[in-house]
Amino acid sequence: MTQTSLTWTRERAEEMDLEDPLAEKRAEFWIPEGTVYLGGNSLGALPAALSGRLQALAGDEWGRGLVASWEGAGWMQAPERVGDKIARLIGAGAGEVIAADSTTVGLTQALLAAVSARRDRPTILTSTTNFPTDLYAATGVAALCPGVALRAVAPDDLPSAIGDDVGVLFLTHVDYRTGAMFDLRGLTAAAHLAGALALWDLCHSAGAVPVGCEENGVDLAVGCGYKYLNGGPGAPGFLYVRRELSKQLANPIRGWLGHAAPFEFSAGWRPAEGIRSFLTSSPPILGLAGLEAGVDVFADVGMADLRSKSMRLGELFVEAVSERSGELELASPRPAEERGSQVSFRHSRAAEIVETLAGSGIVGDFRPPDLCRFGLAPLYLRHVDVFDAAVGLCEAAAALD
Amino acid sequence: MTQTSLTWTRERAEEMDLEDPLAEKRAEFWIPEGTVYLGGNSLGALPAALSGRLQALAGDEWGRGLVASWEGAGWMQAPERVGDKIARLIGAGAGEVIAADSTTVGLTQALLAAVSARRDRPTILTSTTNFPTDLYAATGVAALCPGVALRAVAPDDLPSAIGDDVGVLFLTHVDYRTGAMFDLRGLTAAAHLAGALALWDLCHSAGAVPVGCEENGVDLAVGCGYKYLNGGPGAPGFLYVRRELSKQLANPIRGWLGHAAPFEFSAGWRPAEGIRSFLTSSPPILGLAGLEAGVDVFADVGMADLRSKSMRLGELFVEAVSERSGELELASPRPAEERGSQVSFRHSRAAEIVETLAGSGIVGDFRPPDLCRFGLAPLYLRHVDVFDAAVGLCEAAAALD
Repeated sequence: MTQTSLTWTRERAEEMDLEDPLAEKRAEFWIPEGTVYLGGNSLGALPAALSGRLQALAGDEWGRGLVASWEGAGWMQAPERVGDKIARLIGAGAGEVIAADSTTVGLTQALLAAVSARRDRPTILTSTTNFPTDLYAATGVAALCPGVALRAVAPDDLPSAIGDDVGVLFLTHVDYRTGAMFDLRGLTAAAHLAGALALWDLCHSAGAVPVGCEENGVDLAVGCGYKYLNGGPGAPGFLYVRRELSKQLANPIRGWLGHAAPFEFSAGWRPAEGIRSFLTSSPPILGLAGLEAGVDVFADVGMADLRSKSMRLGELFVEAVSERSGELELASPRPAEERGSQVSFRHSRAAEIVETLAGSGIVGDFRPPDLCRFGLAPLYLRHVDVFDAAVGLCEAAAALD
Repeated sequence: MTQTSLTWTRERAEEMDLEDPLAEKRAEFWIPEGTVYLGGNSLGALPAALSGRLQALAGDEWGRGLVASWEGAGWMQAPERVGDKIARLIGAGAGEVIAADSTTVGLTQALLAAVSARRDRPTILTSTTNFPTDLYAATGVAALCPGVALRAVAPDDLPSAIGDDVGVLFLTHVDYRTGAMFDLRGLTAAAHLAGALALWDLCHSAGAVPVGCEENGVDLAVGCGYKYLNGGPGAPGFLYVRRELSKQLANPIRGWLGHAAPFEFSAGWRPAEGIRSFLTSSPPILGLAGLEAGVDVFADVGMADLRSKSMRLGELFVEAVSERSGELELASPRPAEERGSQVSFRHSRAAEIVETLAGSGIVGDFRPPDLCRFGLAPLYLRHVDVFDAAVGLCEAAAALD
């Protein structure tokens, strides 16, 4: 294959950038010069506004306002305020999402609440391909709740496995290895038809692909603040509970912020209404400031534009690699509509390839045993970045001795 | 009583400041001009070093280092690194404390782990005076675990209530209302003698009074990062598990950071060794930066000096009020050794008094129904601050119509 026969070229990538309606969003991030950052599905890039926000928080709000800032600076409302902003990105309604505790804590809250509400249906059904930490959380819940068991089946076997014993269908929307997306709408409907609740992990979806929690009737969802939401290292996760369901489910981790009247300091537990009952301690204000700065960048972005750019970036990456290298096997689904916002390739020496790329400023991930994984964050990546990464990847694979 | 007969005067307070070995620590905080801040048992003051630390974190580490900073900037080790620094303040050993999730989450982890290890002894024993959120957490655990019940008795009845059915004695060391301190050593020994575990809430102890976890054989403890540790609004809490015990207890909230080999991404749960098994998600780096800045101020401070100053501040406050006002009833124990680092007074119009004080820059707390509560953070309070607050309090009470 000669250079002239190639159809996916840097010139074409440059043209795609010129036509990109989200091109200006890149300026709202701070990306190091000379770096092509495809690790945004692991840790999103730094929003440029955060530095000033942290100065105001650590200066005026905490330093000067001190304890009065819980009300005066809106700290007390932060979990719901940030939650509402995330709600728009996952197609949930206002008052259905909070951001406060970590993703694992949210997962455990959601699972415990769900199995407690479905005591006659003691199986948590998941896929063998689920993110390992989700499996850990679920076995933890099973260990706590006598009779509850986790059953993991292959993805294709899920629809037929949703039997009368299943109380909760618990899946991750986008596979962390390959980017393959489950049919969230169809599987949620199948769960409901069988009388089960549907709990979705949106760690690799929120801020990357549309989810439509409300229109698809999702019951519970959790997600991560530090991947595509760009909330910073270890940012708070988020928890969504369908409005109607939040009246029936009980938060298993009871803390004063989830109380109906926290400042009465009464000895008896009386949960707040709705999603607020799932709060625990005083909210993590520094972490939420990071998450809010990340989520605020999405404020003027339509999910359709975001998805459309993400699919174009993915197509460019896949096609540019495929016409330049025969050694890299696409591990992601080829049709863009079946992929989240990432592309993965298999290679027996994937770890070395990822290391070589890092040496030339192209940041991707190695995931055992043989995956090169690249996150395509549509807010700050240019098409030329993705093109350069594709070429770099092919060269790194070709250069292996 | 005339001014000349008074023995606790501003001149005396000034002398006490001159003799204060911790006087220079105040410069390591940013305290607003004209404010006497006695809310440090609710939200500690801002460490002056934090602003620079946040700039480095949001600039070089996250912005430039991106995902590589998990190792490169020591983020991954933060929960144990900060935990070790807190360990010194509560008399625990290195590797016995982590800081990552919220206080309520830590409480729930500790309670669930303890009751799971003591299934034949299903009672959680606590005091009716325990902090309400602790009672909420414990009823949440009881609701999850069939057969487990929370029993609350009056503080004086605790020793006789530790029967064969009690698996966990669960108390808050320093009462949030009055500052009264439980006999941690004696009650822990009584719990052990009866075959129960002792779990202590150190929210109002850590950074304020010595605890001696190791020497007193405390089994489990949790505490708050945003009170005397000055970690910032909603800072991560900490969790202590006695070294020997951490081999027997299982973390009920399983997440990838608690796994023995998180980066293997293996499907099966295999807990890390020791306290690390109690980690859940990726640690909250922004929140931990705040907490570490707060804890670092203690680095060159001896706990004996800290306690000694705290007792002197308390004595000054109590005596200065008592020789100036007959209307304010001391709600805290009069002997300094029975008090934590706070002083509370009862008054039927406590809420109004606290509001009046706030108007003149003296920040305290109202706690229902009738308490004026004042935290005495020994790292940044001067004796003259406490004296001015005492006089202001007496004047505010006298001025009520």
